Order: sequence, then structure tokens, then C-alpha cells
Amino acid sequence: MEVVSKNQCFGGTQFVYRHRASSCGVDMTLGVYLPPQAAERKVPLLWYLSGLTCTHENAMVKAGLQAHAAKHGLALVFPDTSPRGEGVADDDAYDLGQGAGFYVNATQKPWAPHYRMYDYIVEELPALLEAELPLNGVNGITGHSMGGHGALTIAFRNPQKFRSVSAFAPIVNPTRSDWGRKQLSAYLGNDEALWARHDACLLLAELGWERDILIDQGSSDQFLDLLKPEAMARLMAEKRQPGVFRMQPGYDHSYFFVASFGEDHVAWHAERLKAA
Amino acid sequence: MEVVSKNQCFGGTQFVYRHRASSCGVDMTLGVYLPPQAAERKVPLLWYLSGLTCTHENAMVKAGLQAHAAKHGLALVFPDTSPRGEGVADDDAYDLGQGAGFYVNATQKPWAPHYRMYDYIVEELPALLEAELPLNGVNGITGHSMGGHGALTIAFRNPQKFRSVSAFAPIVNPTRSDWGRKQLSAYLGNDEALWARHDACLLLAELGWERDILIDQGSSDQFLDLLKPEAMARLMAEKRQPGVFRMQPGYDHSYFFVASFGEDHVAWHAERLKAA
Repeated sequence: MEVVSKNQCFGGTQFVYRHRASSCGVDMTLGVYLPPQAAERKVPLLWYLSGLTCTHENAMVKAGLQAHAAKHGLALVFPDTSPRGEGVADDDAYDLGQGAGFYVNATQKPWAPHYRMYDYIVEELPALLEAELPLNGVNGITGHSMGGHGALTIAFRNPQKFRSVSAFAPIVNPTRSDWGRKQLSAYLGNDEALWARHDACLLLAELGWERDILIDQGSSDQFLDLLKPEAMARLMAEKRQPGVFRMQPGYDHSYFFVASFGEDHVAWHAERLKAA
Repeated sequence: MEVVSKNQCFGGTQFVYRHRASSCGVDMTLGVYLPPQAAERKVPLLWYLSGLTCTHENAMVKAGLQAHAAKHGLALVFPDTSPRGEGVADDDAYDLGQGAGFYVNATQKPWAPHYRMYDYIVEELPALLEAELPLNGVNGITGHSMGGHGALTIAFRNPQKFRSVSAFAPIVNPTRSDWGRKQLSAYLGNDEALWARHDACLLLAELGWERDILIDQGSSDQFLDLLKPEAMARLMAEKRQPGVFRMQPGYDHSYFFVASFGEDHVAWHAERLKAA
């Protein structure tokens, strides 16, 4: 990994790295925060997956998670949301193509050659980070909006790799949302059975999740109709799923919402990852 | 003031306002954070002046100060760093013209018609904010880099208006720096006696400051030669100035530095503004 930038932050270090990703076949950029504790021991890693239009940078500079990660001795990783660059397919819409990878492995033209974000997040990047950085191999995952979708679906399918999962305003039922149907059909084709492997509600219903879940959702979120929080809230209640679904009055979909509850999420993951 | 945006944040509200500024003769945009306590009582206000190239937005989204302001019951204001828009003079350099007002009232062509940031920050905006918002008239001021210069010089010249002052990596001796001599000559002309009213070290030496001062400076700041922290540190020691000058090992000039020590600064102002 090549160091793009390095800034001291809350006693630890905020890195931006670039590396050749074999999964996506392009150079990928990511942010990694190492807390002060990483100078002395290997630490757990909390993954933060970002939403539509974001790069590795948005949460890294706006969510304020480093303060809490430093307190609890967790590393953070902020991956990009899609492959980018010359030769990578794109679309004029903000919600398809670059910045909108939806954390799947695309099988359809023109996306299939580079859009392999599922493999990138689940396979390639964990191995690379563990090989290169002082990490103890214990991982939690969270994310916002499309990234909340990524966090939930990836955790549910990989409970051995991700010990804890939470989300901020996640897209929880993409097979029933315009944030989902359009992208899943473009990336995966028209067989909706294949989409189910990328729908948090369908996966939780099918696979379950033995540990607990933390989800925050703003009640004034401008995208409630696309996020479908009621589907997840009902399912968690029906399944007697351990966890907390918090409807936060007055909060919208912005990073001000994520920042407001970031301390809770980092503390929640820290408790679970240290016990792991 | 027209509301441009409004986001719930740490139980309070982050506003962006636009208003016609008579001082600068243009529409100005600013961020204001009202903490949850402002729903029930008038609160003190902490001013945050930003550095070169910034707008009202940088610190508002990157410094994480709202968390601390909510805890302590302080409002925050994030003004822009210069007039902007059609008919406003500019320069190709990043450090002159738009984004680089240096908190002075320009007297020279082509800057004089709109570049009146001193009057805007000291006179017009305080009156407007107090008239429109639940503020108790008790003000503190801080800032970063060029904004740290603004905070120190404005406080030293207006001790009745600003009860507390701190700064992050401030330009403290602009009459002796390339971050200063170029701008002060452009905005104020070649009479260096006029520049002295905008030099924190010269003002502190001449006017003094009866209360204490908090300054944080990163030891790995890439702009140390322009900021001249040693001039202020020496002067504070020579004058037996109450205050703390903290050299923070390893920190650079970025917002990761500001965010890392934002909690300390907000708490420090809160203690002084509540006692005022």
C-alpha cells in the first residue's frame, strides 16, 4: 500500500492509502485510522462503509469517529464505494456506477469487469490490511445508507469474519426499493433470486444473526421511503432478534446525523470486539 | 437571515444562513450551531474564524465542535473568510482575495469596496445574530491559521465584545511573514504603521490582554515558518501573559489537528463565558 497522506489525529494517525486491487482490477484509495494503542499492540478494526456518491473521504473527514476510536483503541477503515478511473464504467445518475457500487460483484455488462466491491470488502481488503497493519484480526462493521446496506448484508453472510454489526440509516430492503431494484438489476441481471443475497431483511430472515444489532435511523430522514426502516424494525421484532432499533427524532440523512451518534456506535462495537 | 439549510445535530440544530451584509455590500453565508440548551434559554456564542481558502463550511463539517458545544451549552458561528460573488475582486493566488480576507477593512483598490471583514465580524454580524437568535450577548472567539490571526487581533482590540480568546495554529506575526506582508500591503497599502493593528504580537505588546489565552500549535505543522509561533511564545513569556501555549507533538496544519483539540478549546471557552 502506498501512503497518500498521513495526519496525526487524536493521538493516533489518519492514513490515506492507495493500492492495486486485484478484485476490482484498478487502484483503490482508502482511509485507515490507527489509534494510539496500535503503537503498542494489535487492535480490532471497525469497518465503515459509505453511502451513495461518497469516496473514502467523506466519513473520514466529517463523521468524527476518530475521537471515539482513539478512546476505545479501535482502528477504522474507510473504503471507497466503487472502483474508479479510466476504463471503469459509469453512469450519469448519481445512484449507479462510480460512487454507487452497492457492495456486490457485478455479473452484467458493462459493470462486470471492475465492480467487484463485495469481494474487495470481504476478501481482498481484510487480508491486505491484516498483513500490513497492527490489527488483531477481530473485525466489526458499520456504515451509512448504501453503506449500512453493505454492512448488514456483509455481516449476515460472514458472521465469522465480522463479529459485530451496526448501521446508520441503512437501505434495509433494496429488493423492494428504488434504491436497490435499479442497481441490482443493472449489476446482477433480472433474476431476483440473486438479489436476495444483497437484501438485509431477506438475509436476516433466512440466515439469522446470533449476536445483537444496533441501527439508528433519523425520523426526519428525507429518504425514509427508499430506506424502508419499517421492514427491518418489524422483522427484528417478529424474529425476536437481539438488538436495538433507534428512531432518532428530528434527525435527517446527513453526516450531522452520523456524527451525532458515532460515539454510541464506536463504543458499542468496542465492547463487542474486545470481548471477542 | 434566510435559512439555506437546517440539520439536527447533537440534539441542537446546525443552520446555514444567508444575509445581505451592509459592511461588505454582498450576500454572505454563515453557519450557526444552536445547542439544545438554546431551546430554553439564551446562550453564549463562540466565534470560529476559518483559514485561507475556507468558506463557512470547512470547520462546520470537519472540526467536530458541535458535540462539545452541545455538551457545554454554547452556540457556534462559522463566518465566511471573505466577500464573494459577482463584482467582488479576486486574485489567482489562494492567499489573496476571495477566501483570504485576513479580517481587515481594505482601503486599497480593487479591494476597498467589499473587503470589510473586520467590520463584518466585529460590528455587523454580532448585532445581527443577537437580534435574531437566542444569544445572551456573551462572546468568545477562536480560529485556525488566518482565522487564529483574526481571533487574536479582534479580541485584543475588542476586549469588551469578546470575553475569551483561543487559537489553533494562528498566524501571530503577519507583519513579519509572507502570510501577512503581501495581504496587508494589498489591502491596506504600504504604510506599515497601519498593519500593526492587525498583528497579534504587536497588539498584545501594545494593548495587553487582561484575561488568559489558549493557543495550540502542531510541532509538525508544514507552515511553521509562516505562522511564527515562536514570536508569540516569547512575547507571552516576556510579558508574563496569563495563558497556555501548547506545542502539540506530531500534529500538522490540517483539520485533524483542529478536531483533536476542539474539545479542549470549547470547554475552555465555556468555563470563561459562563463565568462572564
